[in-house]
Amino acid sequence: MSTAQHDIASTGNLDRRNHGLDVLSTIDGHAGTAVIDALAEISPALGHHVAAFAFGDIYDRPGLDARSRQLVTIGILTALGGCEPQLKVHVGAALNVGLTPDEIVEAMLHSAVYAGFPRALNATFAAKEVFESHGVRPSAASPS
Amino acid sequence: MSTAQHDIASTGNLDRRNHGLDVLSTIDGHAGTAVIDALAEISPALGHHVAAFAFGDIYDRPGLDARSRQLVTIGILTALGGCEPQLKVHVGAALNVGLTPDEIVEAMLHSAVYAGFPRALNATFAAKEVFESHGVRPSAASPS
Amino acid sequence: MSTAQHDIASTGNLDRRNHGLDVLSTIDGHAGTAVIDALAEISPALGHHVAAFAFGDIYDRPGLDARSRQLVTIGILTALGGCEPQLKVHVGAALNVGLTPDEIVEAMLHSAVYAGFPRALNATFAAKEVFESHGVRPSAASPS
Amino acid sequence: MSTAQHDIASTGNLDRRNHGLDVLSTIDGHAGTAVIDALAEISPALGHHVAAFAFGDIYDRPGLDARSRQLVTIGILTALGGCEPQLKVHVGAALNVGLTPDEIVEAMLHSAVYAGFPRALNATFAAKEVFESHGVRPSAASPS
Amino acid sequence: MSTAQHDIASTGNLDRRNHGLDVLSTIDGHAGTAVIDALAEISPALGHHVAAFAFGDIYDRPGLDARSRQLVTIGILTALGGCEPQLKVHVGAALNVGLTPDEIVEAMLHSAVYAGFPRALNATFAAKEVFESHGVRPSAASPS
Amino acid sequence: MSTAQHDIASTGNLDRRNHGLDVLSTIDGHAGTAVIDALAEISPALGHHVAAFAFGDIYDRPGLDARSRQLVTIGILTALGGCEPQLKVHVGAALNVGLTPDEIVEAMLHSAVYAGFPRALNATFAAKEVFESHGVRPSAASPS
Repeated sequence: MSTAQHDIASTGNLDRRNHGLDVLSTIDGHAGTAVIDALAEISPALGHHVAAFAFGDIYDRPGLDARSRQLVTIGILTALGGCEPQLKVHVGAALNVGLTPDEIVEAMLHSAVYAGFPRALNATFAAKEVFESHGVRPSAASPS
Repeated sequence: MSTAQHDIASTGNLDRRNHGLDVLSTIDGHAGTAVIDALAEISPALGHHVAAFAFGDIYDRPGLDARSRQLVTIGILTALGGCEPQLKVHVGAALNVGLTPDEIVEAMLHSAVYAGFPRALNATFAAKEVFESHGVRPSAASPS
Repeated sequence: MSTAQHDIASTGNLDRRNHGLDVLSTIDGHAGTAVIDALAEISPALGHHVAAFAFGDIYDRPGLDARSRQLVTIGILTALGGCEPQLKVHVGAALNVGLTPDEIVEAMLHSAVYAGFPRALNATFAAKEVFESHGVRPSAASPS
Repeated sequence: MSTAQHDIASTGNLDRRNHGLDVLSTIDGHAGTAVIDALAEISPALGHHVAAFAFGDIYDRPGLDARSRQLVTIGILTALGGCEPQLKVHVGAALNVGLTPDEIVEAMLHSAVYAGFPRALNATFAAKEVFESHGVRPSAASPS
Repeated sequence: MSTAQHDIASTGNLDRRNHGLDVLSTIDGHAGTAVIDALAEISPALGHHVAAFAFGDIYDRPGLDARSRQLVTIGILTALGGCEPQLKVHVGAALNVGLTPDEIVEAMLHSAVYAGFPRALNATFAAKEVFESHGVRPSAASPS
Repeated sequence: MSTAQHDIASTGNLDRRNHGLDVLSTIDGHAGTAVIDALAEISPALGHHVAAFAFGDIYDRPGLDARSRQLVTIGILTALGGCEPQLKVHVGAALNVGLTPDEIVEAMLHSAVYAGFPRALNATFAAKEVFESHGVRPSAASPS
């Protein structure tokens, strides 16, 4: 079997990818699968590994609940910077798994201490766009 | 008092925030306060801490003059990358506290040595936009 | 009052710092306060702001429980890289607020997806040192 | 001579810059020289050093062939993040020196292991734009 | 099968891991497997995914030869910074797959243009240690 | 001449390197030249470009005084992280060009706002080592 491990069209890898897509659709709705669809035209292998590895192998592990995984993910993506497209997907996922808008902006404020205010600001403005598209807002925010 | 330290609506924190906003308006004119106004709709606490901590507590300290603080800030924001919105605010602030366009682009050229040419290029093109909106240009630049 | 806002020896700032030190000692035991003590010899103002701002103003906010803050913090520090000293303090804090060794290494494995394997490896080996000093280990790990 | 070393208008530096521009035009066609032209209006010295140092001094060195240099460069720019403008220039250069679209997206998939999936995704979507403007596509990609 | 995808002790995952370990031992000799052995005591799952995913799924793909993968990897790890342990493993791997010491230090010099001199310096000094343990040196270097 | 531009042993490049070494010795005393000497055994070309480009071409430019260059450099190196060896050289250089220990730690405190507290902490502890080797200390620090 090992000779075919890298073959993303093998039955085993198709199963892994489909399982990852199931995990992804549970937490992300449409935004995550849209990314993988967009990759079909440029790098199907990257799309495969996002689904099969990132979501099928890792995200689905029982060691952390979905809420905890999203908190870690928001911390990472805020700190890395330049990941606004991915951060928006995961802010949507965070809402889907039960984090509130208040908790999400609080996590970003918390990030300012460790990653600096510019990263926290960029993340917060990215979250704002997602909140608006979901029709939600933090309770503490003033009406716009 | 300690139970209320995190309450951004307390009298003490309102004083701290207002002082920070005074510092900010002295150096930034409108660009910085516009960021804090935009945060009111999404994360008022982040806006509070930008004003109260970043400008009221730190920027206002006497240990470095405003010109020196802006040189450090330009170095940091150029190096971090992905902070073009914040860099534009601080390029404007740098002009306001007396750095010349020549000095600002020189600091960015200097950054290329330590942070690499892509960061220096992105910073320089961000500065170009600010210079144009302020109607200034480096003396060494050819007319466009 | 605003003229003295930057004076870390003022009564108000002493109160803020002491409150932050209380928050810090609750979650960190000795490791965090040791950092602030070490700063007394080089940058007391940096020590003040770690205590007063990072812990007194931000960490103590009610918007996220301590467990959630530590998950976000582990994500950030893993992603930033080069923050092993701070990561060790926060791995200890994570244990103190109830995260298990299994959850901590799981958060670092999760980080590999977004920040890459080298960052996850460095964080995991830093956690290993803290676990050893606390006499704990992940349940899934083989005895050394 | 040393007093004039920093003078980018000296004969020696003009020679160095022109040689760098020759190297650049060999590998990049128009995209790279367009960046240097754009710098004339804001930081001619930065443009000089991109040409004279980055391309004339370093890129032209015989120790690595052009294909190898582009592989290293794609790895660096993918990992740094926030360098999409520079990455696009170098994806074009990679095509010009003989790397195929399949090899370029493979290098970016490889980068996901070390720099994380968000950086690999951003790089791949940047490459997609360059491929489209060159009228090429990876062989494994599905028709759009 | 999908319910067991995250189970690293399943037959399928054991096969994937063993294949990855074979790939790793081909290119890395002992240094890489030593890392995975060290992970057994702290995060066996991280060790599994380094082997099964990073080497079994990705490194083994036919789209880039081993020499090209190592050039990309050196670029990434130099740029990220703080990855000296991983960089040393991959400098050893680079030697094993046929890159010369001259090519490796040339790739790091090239990195200075894009990631700055400090990253290039740190990488070069890390390479020096690996070269010494392999009893090799760049031809251009002066005898120590 | 262009065929020899990359030849670091040419007369022109030897002149450029020697001029850079003069600039470096003016600001750094021994620490900087020790780095270049160490490179002779591993990457003489990297040492050449540190001297000829970083110091001869850039640092020596008249557009910013040495004090301003060191402020920018401290900001960059603090923000990048993982550059403690280079930061120590430049803290020493900063002292040599007239920045006081108080100004240096103030610049690092200022960096906490933009690059986060962990980067500021690491930089400050690196500065502490340099101050001790120079026999100086910030005036605000308590005796150790």
